[in-house]
Amino acid sequence: MTQQASKLVIVTEKLLLKKIAKIIDAAGATGYTVVAAGGKGSRNVRSSGQPTVSDSYSNIKIEVLTANRDMALKISDEVADQFFDDYSGITYLCDAEILRAHSRF
Amino acid sequence: MTQQASKLVIVTEKLLLKKIAKIIDAAGATGYTVVAAGGKGSRNVRSSGQPTVSDSYSNIKIEVLTANRDMALKISDEVADQFFDDYSGITYLCDAEILRAHSRF
Amino acid sequence: MTQQASKLVIVTEKLLLKKIAKIIDAAGATGYTVVAAGGKGSRNVRSSGQPTVSDSYSNIKIEVLTANRDMALKISDEVADQFFDDYSGITYLCDAEILRAHSRF
Repeated sequence: MTQQASKLVIVTEKLLLKKIAKIIDAAGATGYTVVAAGGKGSRNVRSSGQPTVSDSYSNIKIEVLTANRDMALKISDEVADQFFDDYSGITYLCDAEILRAHSRF
Repeated sequence: MTQQASKLVIVTEKLLLKKIAKIIDAAGATGYTVVAAGGKGSRNVRSSGQPTVSDSYSNIKIEVLTANRDMALKISDEVADQFFDDYSGITYLCDAEILRAHSRF
Repeated sequence: MTQQASKLVIVTEKLLLKKIAKIIDAAGATGYTVVAAGGKGSRNVRSSGQPTVSDSYSNIKIEVLTANRDMALKISDEVADQFFDDYSGITYLCDAEILRAHSRF
């Protein structure tokens, strides 16, 4: 009764959220989760040379559960092609097994 | 010395946190992590038709490391049965390998 | 074109962030992501016996993508050896597959 899924994770700059949300929607994903994130590895952090303290979250971590790997790759490619020349970001995949979902989720 | 575990992830509405915490405790899990989350797929987001911006986090993402899959499924079933008729939410499982833990964690 | 990686997750107390960031840097990891977290299982939560509500985040969840398992274990061991006698915390590993990364990420 459970469903194998791919969890695509996108960590990038906060100002890209609305544009990435449109890419996710257009790819046919049913939803995504967004969390505020800080860290090192992003452009603005390296420029100061200081690790981002946890009170300062200029990045976002977006998680998208997709029914198959191809949809995850498509979203990842579109996001990277459109934004990763100009903005910091990384995308990666994890395996997930969907157990239960609200019908409207 | 490491321990294979199941990581149960529950994304749902913020107001359910205390009730879900009781279910997790009653199932015998030793702890959980809560993160504020936004996103699409939740009822309140769909009603407006707008993606939630990252400054507005009305959802939570709860992660529970359980020693076995059965405990994760039990928590997932109880949460879904009690709340997912009336509230938006999703539960999914990932594999995790516990490396080190504080004795009181 | 994708790259298998280990995702090390460290959940611990917020005040340790800067020290842990130095350990991650010294191990040669290229970056990490930090998210504010609450939960149960931490020392300060158990002392009150109340679950942390989602508005009160005294913990952090740090995620580090490492090219190999050994680097993840090294960081985990150093963090646990230095801090987990005195502070609450847990470290665990998940598998991840890196898809795309900004060159400066």
